Amino acid sequence: MMQEYGVKPWVKVFPRKHTDFGEWYRKVLFDADVLDQRFPLKGCNVWKGYGTKIMDNIMNILEDLLDESDHEKTYFPLLIPEDVFSKESKHLKGFEDQVFWVNKAGANELTKKLVVRPTSETAMYQMFPLWVRSHADLPIRVYQTVSVFRYETRSTKPLIRDREIWPFNEAHTLHATPDEAEEQVKIGVEIYRELFRRLALPYLLVRKPTWELFPGAVMCFEFYTMMPDGKLLETGSVNNLGQSFSKVFDITFEKEDGTRDHAYQTCYGQSERLLASVIAIHSDDHGLVLPSSIAPIQAVIVPISYTGDAEKVTDYVATVEKRLQEGGFRVTLDSSAMTPGEKYYHWERKGVPIRVEVGPRETKKKIVTIVRRHTLQKREVPLEDLTSELKEALEEVDNDLLMWAEDQLRASINHITNLSEIQEGRILCAPFCGEERCRDIIEAASVEIIGLSLKENVAPTRCIACDNQATESVYIARTY
Amino acid sequence: MMQEYGVKPWVKVFPRKHTDFGEWYRKVLFDADVLDQRFPLKGCNVWKGYGTKIMDNIMNILEDLLDESDHEKTYFPLLIPEDVFSKESKHLKGFEDQVFWVNKAGANELTKKLVVRPTSETAMYQMFPLWVRSHADLPIRVYQTVSVFRYETRSTKPLIRDREIWPFNEAHTLHATPDEAEEQVKIGVEIYRELFRRLALPYLLVRKPTWELFPGAVMCFEFYTMMPDGKLLETGSVNNLGQSFSKVFDITFEKEDGTRDHAYQTCYGQSERLLASVIAIHSDDHGLVLPSSIAPIQAVIVPISYTGDAEKVTDYVATVEKRLQEGGFRVTLDSSAMTPGEKYYHWERKGVPIRVEVGPRETKKKIVTIVRRHTLQKREVPLEDLTSELKEALEEVDNDLLMWAEDQLRASINHITNLSEIQEGRILCAPFCGEERCRDIIEAASVEIIGLSLKENVAPTRCIACDNQATESVYIARTY
Repeated sequence: MMQEYGVKPWVKVFPRKHTDFGEWYRKVLFDADVLDQRFPLKGCNVWKGYGTKIMDNIMNILEDLLDESDHEKTYFPLLIPEDVFSKESKHLKGFEDQVFWVNKAGANELTKKLVVRPTSETAMYQMFPLWVRSHADLPIRVYQTVSVFRYETRSTKPLIRDREIWPFNEAHTLHATPDEAEEQVKIGVEIYRELFRRLALPYLLVRKPTWELFPGAVMCFEFYTMMPDGKLLETGSVNNLGQSFSKVFDITFEKEDGTRDHAYQTCYGQSERLLASVIAIHSDDHGLVLPSSIAPIQAVIVPISYTGDAEKVTDYVATVEKRLQEGGFRVTLDSSAMTPGEKYYHWERKGVPIRVEVGPRETKKKIVTIVRRHTLQKREVPLEDLTSELKEALEEVDNDLLMWAEDQLRASINHITNLSEIQEGRILCAPFCGEERCRDIIEAASVEIIGLSLKENVAPTRCIACDNQATESVYIARTY
Repeated sequence: MMQEYGVKPWVKVFPRKHTDFGEWYRKVLFDADVLDQRFPLKGCNVWKGYGTKIMDNIMNILEDLLDESDHEKTYFPLLIPEDVFSKESKHLKGFEDQVFWVNKAGANELTKKLVVRPTSETAMYQMFPLWVRSHADLPIRVYQTVSVFRYETRSTKPLIRDREIWPFNEAHTLHATPDEAEEQVKIGVEIYRELFRRLALPYLLVRKPTWELFPGAVMCFEFYTMMPDGKLLETGSVNNLGQSFSKVFDITFEKEDGTRDHAYQTCYGQSERLLASVIAIHSDDHGLVLPSSIAPIQAVIVPISYTGDAEKVTDYVATVEKRLQEGGFRVTLDSSAMTPGEKYYHWERKGVPIRVEVGPRETKKKIVTIVRRHTLQKREVPLEDLTSELKEALEEVDNDLLMWAEDQLRASINHITNLSEIQEGRILCAPFCGEERCRDIIEAASVEIIGLSLKENVAPTRCIACDNQATESVYIARTY
């Protein structure tokens, strides 16, 4: 396999990220052992060991943030009886075209069909009346990390549009007052902001327009990341559900004054799209690039030894490895039979943030050569400074990745004031009057109003579609 | 709720473990917030926060053991196309009465039906030919922790016989030689032995008789735990699959000598039954009892303060809490509005191994009173010895639980030499000739031959059914 490549083999064989995003993306996922997409069912992926570790690291960050803010991890069943699922009619309508149905078990036709969960509102909310009696039972904050299933008829794209979405993290909360629910929505948004920061992911945060709300929701904030082709990817949303579900599922409680009210609910979710965003945004034409927070291996040691020096180098490599392990890094020593060049290539494709080269020269000078994956820059570091330098290097990786990606996102946003300025491949921010008629005019240009800007002061300008007074700034883009 | 109970309220209201195991078991699970069994679909449970934490702790121990012995965590899809699932005819036959079928998606009848996985052999093994080319690709060791689904028509029992089994941990390995596969089976057995030790669970380990083998397996070891009613619960199995699946799925590789062979496979699994065993074996008429290894809270601090002393006690409680946190214990301070007695009752039901009582007397004497959940014994401990004493106390809990349960299991096994000695409610060990005819005679007494003893030397005795020369010792019992 290896001999067909030259010194920088990938340049010849790797599809280029910015000219062929789709092909590049699939190749990065496959070559780095993230996914195997050859499972014989469309939109259902096999997660390989390396990909599973990265995704687990991401979900562990999210679960820790939820645990720290008083959410309890739970687990609700996958199969939902039809009558439970169809209780909230708008919710049913929003999902009925895309759910998988279990009709048969063993040799029996089931009299009551079962839905394979596309999301867990109904499974959870029919339990809540059993848990909520009085205001003292509130708030309740639960979450689960599971698979959800959507029968996509459009073409699927791994981690972006799948039929089995794994993992899917959904949080659901219940409160005694609308203010508390609103406060919880803010907390949900803050949790996701922090999550994105730790993944070195910049995002566009918008309020969803009314016509785009999740079935049953009364208010929704949405996070978008920008793919290399300029299209936006919805990566997480935070919903204020008001009392729409609690009225349907009869989730009531006794207030302190003895009267009864329906609970106020919120829900928010994240998915495998977090990894899609990390990979699409940070990786390059050499393969995967990962922030140190989620890299399964933060540093790989590659020994370079020649006859004569072998023993000395091996001893020194052991010293280096021990230092790094004691320093608390996730470190691997590659003592395989591959040549150093092959090893470089192998670990670059897998996005290990730092390569530590140790050869006869390093051994003699009591140094190591560290190479940053994201810049491919080399630097010599004295052994005594190894752990502090490595710590710094990993922080630098994460900072660089976030900064570069932020610059890219910022540079892609254009403020426009006229319909004729709409152009593909860019994110546009425009004044808008809020009328659905004007939405249709804008969206006729095969772009989408993805949401309303959160900035409170809209300059006194005119709607780009009708020229009436604008009430909002909206973001316009193409999306996945 | 609380005022209806007296000093030892549970004695009045709790069903007794040894006279009414079924009712007692359900009540322990419910009262300790492990499960809510009111989900409107038989055999599908809602896992509450506390139960999820315990189960996560158990699965983390198992996953760590698998990771340490070179298994890679992966994830394979839930839905399996019918033609893949039915490829191994014995496997299909073993499961076809109990699988859930997806026939419809959105409004479309599916032309190819999908099976909701009852186990993942077929989903995984149809991928392996893509991963295995040469001996250098072997061994492969993967595992996943997922839900599996079995359409049980018998009555269900939470964590023991469910329709959604969550979590289910299944490991699957591939090897170049039968010897390596046999070696791997031993490793699988050792991993489970260590797991059981950490859960303070004694077990009976047997080799499964041929007629009881998992569909497709050629050799199987099985772990059984003993429930309080004397029945055995199968809790984990380790299978040598030989080449039966690799021949069906065409998993071949090139050997070092250039010839080709089919891979040799093993698989082994564990499930929620681990928690069923922990709870059923260790808990008592006061509620849950947990070994410290999996207790979400290892010690709960209960402050006991009276007017006048309140401030001093509060300060001292903070000191105690800080010490325990710094000692690395999972500790909780219960500063709720409940009375100390109510708190005792609450945390006893939840099986917190150690209660730390801190009142005016403790504050004055710079001591704490620690109470072991499993014995309810009290002991005073000087503040300066707190962390070492607590560490010791937790070890004592785990050792006691294991020892007590081992004694119970040992005392329940009777060695018999005659059919007339068969009796319910005990585990019997008897000489056996291996003939199916004799099996039928034995099992006519509504007991089951659960497996063959692993002890190599069978005394020269006669089969209890036919009086011919015995070749094996078999264990006979009733099972769940």
